[in-house]
Amino acid sequence: MGVIEGRTGLELLSPAACWALVSGSELGRIGVLVDGAPEIYPVNFVVDGEAIAFRTAGGGKLRGLERSPSVCFEVDGVDPGERTGWSVLIKGTAEVVQDAAKARRLAATDLRYWAPGQKASWIRIEADEITGRRITR
Amino acid sequence: MGVIEGRTGLELLSPAACWALVSGSELGRIGVLVDGAPEIYPVNFVVDGEAIAFRTAGGGKLRGLERSPSVCFEVDGVDPGERTGWSVLIKGTAEVVQDAAKARRLAATDLRYWAPGQKASWIRIEADEITGRRITR
Repeated sequence: MGVIEGRTGLELLSPAACWALVSGSELGRIGVLVDGAPEIYPVNFVVDGEAIAFRTAGGGKLRGLERSPSVCFEVDGVDPGERTGWSVLIKGTAEVVQDAAKARRLAATDLRYWAPGQKASWIRIEADEITGRRITR
Repeated sequence: MGVIEGRTGLELLSPAACWALVSGSELGRIGVLVDGAPEIYPVNFVVDGEAIAFRTAGGGKLRGLERSPSVCFEVDGVDPGERTGWSVLIKGTAEVVQDAAKARRLAATDLRYWAPGQKASWIRIEADEITGRRITR
């Protein structure tokens, strides 16, 4: 077991532990600023180096991150039966992927989208900071 | 089945359907603005009228919402096996509950906290807007 945070009683996860948990997940939630207030959207994603990548059809989250590229990305894993779980928060900068080589590399990943609809744009969030906490019993 | 959103191919949920789904959940995620960028924190919550209420120990999310009370709250339910799910986004205004009668009413709810730690403050997010989408096959 790692370091326990005094204020919350939660175990603090190392960056390596955070990336391992995120890499094993396929659904996360992006937090973007839209008209001065935060909005949260669940998306399927892949890990690309120390970045998160996903595709979007446009709409609120794309407009939001074009205007305000400082975003966050949250991934968690919970066990309602045991009432336990972990959560990782990535803070970073979002870019709409324009580079053709980068887009080809991302298109070759095994990103699986649950939702239907055309998703024309790849978004990549380069991580500036990654932190995580886990409930321990 | 309800209205299908053309851009995303997702079913749009009515406010009543959104509240029913949120009321049946015990874990959601608050989006707050901290130093100009969004952050997301999972919290256990209860529904109180057309508002979300939860307790917090302080830290980043409490500081964030005191300075910038326009927040959002996201609740979702996903089935990774079926690769389906729904998501509800509430936009609203957060307040630290100071009123003694309101705090007593909230303390009488069956809010169950998974995480340890002292959580001194009740936060209440009055919903200004509630929207939801569901993946349909």
